[in-house]
Amino acid sequence: MKDLYLDDFKPGDKFTTGSASLTEKQIVEFAKQYDPQPFHIDPAAAKESIFGGIIASGFQTLLLGFRLIIDSGVLKVASMGSPGMDELRWLKPVRPGDTLSVKIEVKEVRPSQSKPDRGIARMSYRYVNQRGEDVLTVTSMQLMKRRPKG
Amino acid sequence: MKDLYLDDFKPGDKFTTGSASLTEKQIVEFAKQYDPQPFHIDPAAAKESIFGGIIASGFQTLLLGFRLIIDSGVLKVASMGSPGMDELRWLKPVRPGDTLSVKIEVKEVRPSQSKPDRGIARMSYRYVNQRGEDVLTVTSMQLMKRRPKG
Repeated sequence: MKDLYLDDFKPGDKFTTGSASLTEKQIVEFAKQYDPQPFHIDPAAAKESIFGGIIASGFQTLLLGFRLIIDSGVLKVASMGSPGMDELRWLKPVRPGDTLSVKIEVKEVRPSQSKPDRGIARMSYRYVNQRGEDVLTVTSMQLMKRRPKG
Repeated sequence: MKDLYLDDFKPGDKFTTGSASLTEKQIVEFAKQYDPQPFHIDPAAAKESIFGGIIASGFQTLLLGFRLIIDSGVLKVASMGSPGMDELRWLKPVRPGDTLSVKIEVKEVRPSQSKPDRGIARMSYRYVNQRGEDVLTVTSMQLMKRRPKG
């Protein structure tokens, strides 16, 4: 992918990432460290839960897709960090072996009024599984460098 | 902490978690795996960035506090997972050695109309550092069990 600065994005632009999946071992290990709720770490308790089996921590799902976004190169040269995210929704459980990819759509591009070298791009991330179901959606604000002059 | 079900929460209830911090090594290792942007993994590039040094991935900050929330016991018996989060804001950089705790406030408690065994609690999480500065704020929706009858 070529170098993309804030100036290179416009509302409606779309990108798709590569794909990735998680094993049950990866799900349990992550959750033991960060999100040790029974339906993430204990197969027997998970079976009795509303999910019927081990599901990935929603944070692990969020991270799995964010790494795919990073690896896509969309944020490579221009990202200056993020002030936040809105309307994060975990829509479907992510189970061991599910394969996810992320559909990125640019919603808004807003150059800074006070700092001419940067601006905010608002992007929607839609995480889709191997059955074409949305499993996670979120809108991210991305602080990005503008294309250097000359 | 005693067992807390949806029925035990009301708007305005407040809880505070324990505290935790991250070393530079933990910050770099996490980011290499999940969020490999230069200002998280490369001390020289971080020094040249707007942050002036290595800062934690915002996702790592989010997780650090979520683990503190889990360890507080507030969600221990009743959590059935979360449908989502709103207005996640990364307000200040988190640097190696910063110590964070989370202030939890219940904003809304809504029993399900269709499923009498559960409901949604909306809670605000405010992550505060050792200088009393807010570094992260977010509102989480938490699906919770109601207190079993009898």
